[in-house]
Amino acid sequence: MIRTHNAGSLRASDAGQTVTLAGWVARRRDHGGVIFVDLRDASGVVQVVFREEDAHALRNEYCVKVVGEVNARPGGNENPDLATGAIEVVASELTVLSEAAPLPLPVDDATSSADDLRLKYRYLDLRRSGPSAALRLRSRANQIAREVLHARDFNEIETPTLTRSTPEGARDFLVPVRLQPGTWYALPQSPQLFKQLLMVAGLERYYQIARCYRDEDFRADRQPEFTQLDIEMSFVTQDDIIELGEQIVSKLWSELAGYQVQLPIPRITWTDAMNRYGSDKPDLRYGVELRELTSYLQGTEFRVFAGAIAAGGYVGAVVMPGGASQTRKELDGWQDWAKARGARGLAYVVLDAETGEPRGPVAKNLSAEHLSGLADEVGAKPGDAIFFAAANERREAQELLGAARIEIAKRAKLIDESAWAFCWVVDAPMFEKTDDGGWTAVHHPFTSPNDEWIGNFEEAPDRALAYAYDIVVNGNEIGGGSVRIHRADVQSRVFDLLGITPEEAQDKFGFLLEAFKYGPPPHAGIALGWDRTCMLLSGNESIREVIAFPKTRGGYDPLTTAPTPITAQQRLEAGIDAKPKAPAAAAGTGGQAAPVEHSN
Amino acid sequence: MIRTHNAGSLRASDAGQTVTLAGWVARRRDHGGVIFVDLRDASGVVQVVFREEDAHALRNEYCVKVVGEVNARPGGNENPDLATGAIEVVASELTVLSEAAPLPLPVDDATSSADDLRLKYRYLDLRRSGPSAALRLRSRANQIAREVLHARDFNEIETPTLTRSTPEGARDFLVPVRLQPGTWYALPQSPQLFKQLLMVAGLERYYQIARCYRDEDFRADRQPEFTQLDIEMSFVTQDDIIELGEQIVSKLWSELAGYQVQLPIPRITWTDAMNRYGSDKPDLRYGVELRELTSYLQGTEFRVFAGAIAAGGYVGAVVMPGGASQTRKELDGWQDWAKARGARGLAYVVLDAETGEPRGPVAKNLSAEHLSGLADEVGAKPGDAIFFAAANERREAQELLGAARIEIAKRAKLIDESAWAFCWVVDAPMFEKTDDGGWTAVHHPFTSPNDEWIGNFEEAPDRALAYAYDIVVNGNEIGGGSVRIHRADVQSRVFDLLGITPEEAQDKFGFLLEAFKYGPPPHAGIALGWDRTCMLLSGNESIREVIAFPKTRGGYDPLTTAPTPITAQQRLEAGIDAKPKAPAAAAGTGGQAAPVEHSN
Repeated sequence: MIRTHNAGSLRASDAGQTVTLAGWVARRRDHGGVIFVDLRDASGVVQVVFREEDAHALRNEYCVKVVGEVNARPGGNENPDLATGAIEVVASELTVLSEAAPLPLPVDDATSSADDLRLKYRYLDLRRSGPSAALRLRSRANQIAREVLHARDFNEIETPTLTRSTPEGARDFLVPVRLQPGTWYALPQSPQLFKQLLMVAGLERYYQIARCYRDEDFRADRQPEFTQLDIEMSFVTQDDIIELGEQIVSKLWSELAGYQVQLPIPRITWTDAMNRYGSDKPDLRYGVELRELTSYLQGTEFRVFAGAIAAGGYVGAVVMPGGASQTRKELDGWQDWAKARGARGLAYVVLDAETGEPRGPVAKNLSAEHLSGLADEVGAKPGDAIFFAAANERREAQELLGAARIEIAKRAKLIDESAWAFCWVVDAPMFEKTDDGGWTAVHHPFTSPNDEWIGNFEEAPDRALAYAYDIVVNGNEIGGGSVRIHRADVQSRVFDLLGITPEEAQDKFGFLLEAFKYGPPPHAGIALGWDRTCMLLSGNESIREVIAFPKTRGGYDPLTTAPTPITAQQRLEAGIDAKPKAPAAAAGTGGQAAPVEHSN
Repeated sequence: MIRTHNAGSLRASDAGQTVTLAGWVARRRDHGGVIFVDLRDASGVVQVVFREEDAHALRNEYCVKVVGEVNARPGGNENPDLATGAIEVVASELTVLSEAAPLPLPVDDATSSADDLRLKYRYLDLRRSGPSAALRLRSRANQIAREVLHARDFNEIETPTLTRSTPEGARDFLVPVRLQPGTWYALPQSPQLFKQLLMVAGLERYYQIARCYRDEDFRADRQPEFTQLDIEMSFVTQDDIIELGEQIVSKLWSELAGYQVQLPIPRITWTDAMNRYGSDKPDLRYGVELRELTSYLQGTEFRVFAGAIAAGGYVGAVVMPGGASQTRKELDGWQDWAKARGARGLAYVVLDAETGEPRGPVAKNLSAEHLSGLADEVGAKPGDAIFFAAANERREAQELLGAARIEIAKRAKLIDESAWAFCWVVDAPMFEKTDDGGWTAVHHPFTSPNDEWIGNFEEAPDRALAYAYDIVVNGNEIGGGSVRIHRADVQSRVFDLLGITPEEAQDKFGFLLEAFKYGPPPHAGIALGWDRTCMLLSGNESIREVIAFPKTRGGYDPLTTAPTPITAQQRLEAGIDAKPKAPAAAAGTGGQAAPVEHSN
């Protein structure tokens, strides 16, 4: 080691010692003949005192080695805000290890530059304590999760990332294969199929902090490559996975956020979450629950509500505490907000702060009877505002109210930013209707119906429930999973309902179905979105902050300028334009499998 | 959990307990009214006893749940070879969790199927104890390496796998980018550039068990994706990295192979390794050292040797103990062996077992004087064979002798298969000559010359040495690394020698060079080939055995049938045939960097 001590580790008890330090010039202050330098390394910062003639050439972010003696600071000069603030190092030798050109952005904890500049010079951005702390936290999060999993005999197993493209995989990244020109690998969106195969293989307990790939349009905060803590277990039930997830989450939050998660984490059914919060990932840091008014408003002549009620739809409301004091402009702002979400508007009633009298556009359209009981029905007080939504599809109206609920909490400052509110959302629906009147799997077609529905999900697909579970904190889904189908008969029935023919199933999932012929165990799993989990733990608002070298929108990397065009030579060598030799290979994935088949 | 106990954990002390087990039917034996089943789960195997009428439907690899009572086996029926051999479980309830079709390959520790069949049904292959143990060992190896690294404050940091293609990267896998049609990512051959950037970023201690990609022709045992334990540190010297590597290796071998590595591991210079063993990764489990004869044979009239000596080349020999007893056919076989390696043949002399008299084709061509001292000069005894090589290029002849040395050890059975012989190969050359008379970097152009050569490597590039080190065990290179250049002046001089113009350097490595303007710290690193390390630790002879889902030659996956052709729709959506919008983006990687540049 070039150094004898870490800069940030020096204390009053080290006074008198000669130390060798190495790090960066974080700040320089000249004081008549003497130069004070804050020397920064990975452990922290210490003040170094140079004679002016020794250090006049030093500039910010020079990398230096310093030999000096640790001295107690002169009385009155201690800095209680700094771990090393009781001492300083009086330099006797200085070696400039490397110089720094003028900086394109300040390496300064107090100043944050524009995102693109930060990413272009990410290596300078990461010299700041906040950005580097986020990466250190992530490293520690990996370690904590692994401790929980290894204590329970999990095996960390790597699954392939050069794998098979599935016909419907329009969002797979593709990779041309030079050695088999005309053929392509796909980068996996998750290790799902491989982890299920590992269960068939009898490994029983698998995990991986897995890189995954999704060629999506980059909304807000997406990355083309992302990471999940991926877990699968055999011979377990939903409760076992939930318990494991709770152990991981509680240890993470306890050690990295200083918060003791109350276990067990409350479970809320998917239907309750929608009814009460208008979301399948409810933020439970505040109340502001939705109230259904479909029955209460029976017989109303207000066309918007009456239409939804007549169509078997839904009318509901959510209350904004103190919302009656909003200006006309603020109330109009809600209309713009709703339109930006694709709704026609957001009907409302305000209750006079003194009299409680309902006013506003909707009030005129409701009967005296409906108006008089309204505040009680929705739990509003004088001075509150009541927002309404109505639609033929219950979910559509509830989601609008759910979004309004979040916006209310922000505008009315109802959110305790220091709070952590966890829940599991369970009993998710198996299926949802497609536009053409068929059914599609809400999760994936291997998700198991729960015990209540496993025998008869065909009778009411819209009500059938799955063993599928999501873990939610402060309105963020940080993970989800399911019990998988391991019985061939159940799998066939699910495919039938989804309109997937045996031939199509073979083509899409052939190798997994083939594996399932050979004694697959009951199994279940979960995946935690690791970028988002670390983002929340580190108190950041973007997953970019917990990724060493993230990309911007469109998948662009300002540092390396990837992606780039390729040369004609590269194109030729990679076989990008070659025709595949054996087009038959395109069909099926493992049909010609077992030597003898029999019914099972 | 569906079970109460793990099958392999039951012992005599459990007798009398009622247990619920879940696992697979590994073997079934019928004994008049009673059926014995070996029930296997991840923990091991236990014998379960069924009444015949309860279990007659069971077939191999059915997945079952069994409730039963643990009983001591009747006297004389204990199986001391089985951990659970003192007891059996008398079943009272049986549930078939899933059935198994007739098996395409036997799930049997004693029978190994053809490789392609094993990989097509990898999930059945992995039910065997050997293959699954290899994956469990690998999981444990990850954990051990991480323990060493976290105890030393390393951060586990993920680097991008969708990154920039470099112009010379003909072996990069490429990925078309739908959102920027006509542009491509490359999959990285290693995290080298990113880990150096993390050092510039001040992270100081980085590691990652990193997936890497190389689109190579698949010799023997290569995979298109492979894994390395990738490490980089700042403010260290070569000795620090070597010490860290030794800690990791010694803990791995101690815990996973039951072998205490003697520390420090011996170091041998690259030149010594070539001179003594004819290899830069010498197998030190046996002697059989090369002997140089260039001086000894001065003046010889044997044309092959004289030519090499006159050209300033090399003549040397290696001794095969007892090699004189080889048949003519065996000795001819050596010629075929040499020709298969691209040599013209392998000259030899055999020493009569009784008289020590030299015989054979070369003997006729050597002078009496050269012959009489030969045995002493090469350390041969009566009954040995002496193989020769001569070439104008020392390295060419030494490598032939080095390969002969390995072959000798095999044929003469000199290898102690239970031994572990470690060494570091250090002081590697910086440069080697290119065909056009220039120089190329032996490692990569960021490898630092050592202190002796840093000031004057230009004066004798062929002799200049690098701070580059490889760790070798039993003739396998399991890792290597180097101190990196962090001084701009040294980097420029290296580029100059390599004939890389500043413009080319900017184009190829622009973003790294840009980063190096801002106070880069001295840094060094190492990468351990994780597949090979785990292969050796698990006693396997192919890296496929320590990869869950490996590919065969040509990158084919018999299980999923990847790679496959893609549809026209996929091709269109991925933007494979799109022209890039801004061809200018192809040039440079970060040229327009700092706002102001000054000389440093």
